[in-house]
Amino acid sequence: MPLTEKRLIARIRAQAGRGLAASSIAVGIGDDTAVLRPPRGHEILVTTDFSLEGGHFRRDWEPAESTGHRCLLPGLSDIAAMGGDPLAAFLSLALPASLPQKWVDGFLQGLLKLARRHRVNLAGGDVSSVTAGLDKVLADIVVVGSVPRGKAILRSGAAAGERIFVTGALGLAAATLNICYAGGATANLNPQPRLAVGRYLRQRRLATAMIDISDGLSTDLRHLCDESGVGAEIAENQIPVAAGSTLNFALHGGDDYELLFTAPAGAKVPVRVAGVAITQIGITTKDRRSWLQRKDGKRLRLV
Amino acid sequence: MPLTEKRLIARIRAQAGRGLAASSIAVGIGDDTAVLRPPRGHEILVTTDFSLEGGHFRRDWEPAESTGHRCLLPGLSDIAAMGGDPLAAFLSLALPASLPQKWVDGFLQGLLKLARRHRVNLAGGDVSSVTAGLDKVLADIVVVGSVPRGKAILRSGAAAGERIFVTGALGLAAATLNICYAGGATANLNPQPRLAVGRYLRQRRLATAMIDISDGLSTDLRHLCDESGVGAEIAENQIPVAAGSTLNFALHGGDDYELLFTAPAGAKVPVRVAGVAITQIGITTKDRRSWLQRKDGKRLRLV
Repeated sequence: MPLTEKRLIARIRAQAGRGLAASSIAVGIGDDTAVLRPPRGHEILVTTDFSLEGGHFRRDWEPAESTGHRCLLPGLSDIAAMGGDPLAAFLSLALPASLPQKWVDGFLQGLLKLARRHRVNLAGGDVSSVTAGLDKVLADIVVVGSVPRGKAILRSGAAAGERIFVTGALGLAAATLNICYAGGATANLNPQPRLAVGRYLRQRRLATAMIDISDGLSTDLRHLCDESGVGAEIAENQIPVAAGSTLNFALHGGDDYELLFTAPAGAKVPVRVAGVAITQIGITTKDRRSWLQRKDGKRLRLV
Repeated sequence: MPLTEKRLIARIRAQAGRGLAASSIAVGIGDDTAVLRPPRGHEILVTTDFSLEGGHFRRDWEPAESTGHRCLLPGLSDIAAMGGDPLAAFLSLALPASLPQKWVDGFLQGLLKLARRHRVNLAGGDVSSVTAGLDKVLADIVVVGSVPRGKAILRSGAAAGERIFVTGALGLAAATLNICYAGGATANLNPQPRLAVGRYLRQRRLATAMIDISDGLSTDLRHLCDESGVGAEIAENQIPVAAGSTLNFALHGGDDYELLFTAPAGAKVPVRVAGVAITQIGITTKDRRSWLQRKDGKRLRLV
C-alpha cells in the first residue's frame, strides 16, 4: 500500500500515545497547538534539528530504527547539555512517495523507543509532501524541555583555572562512519543522550559551563571557550578514546553526544554518574587559545 | 557568492536580533538550546509547520518576501486559535546550493517583518544541507507561545445551541491561487494572523471553542464539530465572501487564516475586534451532521 499523509499521521498518533505517562502534556496531537504544562518556576528549553537523507543519514548504511534513534538524539542531547528535563518532542516529516512503509515503521519504532526510554512524549508535528515529488527523506525534530528558572547550564559560564571534563568515551561515531565510507559493515550505532548526567550536574551545581559534543571535541571545546571568554589546555593522554576508535576521531570526529563541561577546581566531581564515566581532560586558561599537550611532550594548537 | 551554512546563520542572527525587545527569551541563538521565560502561571503552546517548495509554495508564483511571510503565518495563526501569545519562533531551513542569495534574503525579510509586527523573536533554528544535492527549498517553522494555565481555547469546547462566528472575509487565498494556476498574475498575499482577536476572545471568555481556517471553512468546521461532539447549521447568505472571491472558495478553499469560533447564545460578541469584522454564520446542533442553508431554500450536507 502506498504511503499517504492520513495513514502516516494515524500511525504516528497510535504509536505515540502507547503506554506513556503524559502529565506534562495537557493537550497533545489533534488541536491547533500542543499545550505543555511545565513544572512551576521552570523556564522552557527549545531545540530543533534537521536531518536530511544523504547529509545526515543514508538508508543503505543503517537500519531505519537507527536513523529514527539518531534523528531524535541531538535534541535530547541538547536538553541534557543545559541540565534540563525533556517535556515533549515534535516530529515533522517529509517523505518521498516511493518510500517503503516498512522503512517508515522502523524509523518511528527507533525514534519512539528512544523517546520512551527517556520518558518523552511525541506531542505533535507535521507530515508533508508525500506526493510532492520529493526524492529524499527529511525529518525536523523539536524537543521542548524545562529547567528551574535561572539554572540552565550555559556555554558561557566557565572561568579561567577551572577543570574540563567529558562523559563516556569519544570517537566511536566517526570510526563507524569511516568503516561505512570504506564500504564496510552497515552502522548500528545508538548512543544515549546524557540526560541523567546533565540533571545531576545541575542539581548539585557542579558545572559552570556545558555543551554536548556533536561537532567533535576540538570544535565544541572551541564553542564553549569562545562563549566563556577563556582558553583551554587539554592532555592527549587523558582523552577517553572509545575502543575501536583513534585519538584523531576522538578529537575531531562528531556525533558522539557526550557532554563536555567545566567545574571549579574545588568541586567534587564523581568519576562516574548514572553509570557513565566522567574524565578530566584539562583546564581552562586566561589565554584564550586552546592547546593539546601531546604524549611526546609537544604542545599543539587546537583551532 | 555561493550560499554557505555559516554565512546564512550569520545573516539570520544579524537580521533576527535587530531592534526587538526579547524579554521572553533568556538565551537566544548560540547555546545548545534557546531558553524561554514564559509569564508565571502560563502553559506553553507549541506548533510546527513544514513548508515545501512545489507543495506549499512556488518560487515563480510569488515574491520571496511573500513566501517567508506565509511560512511563518500558519504557526502564528495556530497560537491565535488557542487564544495565546507567541513567545518565539524557530526556523529550520534546507536550501539547494544553487539558490540565489537574493531569494534567501527576501524570504528572511518577509518572515522577519511578520515576526516583528507581532513582536515575536526568532530564537533559533537549524540550517542544513546547502550542499547536500537538495533541489527544493524546505522550511520548518516552530512557534512557541503561552496562555494562562487552563485558559487555552480548544477545538473541543463547543456545546449544541451555540453561535458560530468567523473573523474577516474568506476565499481570497484560494481565488488568488486559482489565478496562478490559470497562468495569471503572481500572488502577493500577506494575510495577518488574528492574534489580537484570539487574545480578546480568551481574555473576555467569549469563545467556547476555536480553530483557525487553514484547510477551508467546511473542513475546519468539521474538525471543530468532531472534537466538540456537535453538528452545525451555517447559512450561505451569512458567509463573508472576500471581494474577488466566490462562495465556493470561501467554503472550501484553504489558507485564509481567519478564526472560526463558537460562543454561547447570550455572549456579547462585538461585530468588530481590533479592526477585524466578526460575523455570525450559523449555530451548533445536537445532530452531529453539518448543513449549509442555501439562498434558494435548499439544505446541503457539508462533509
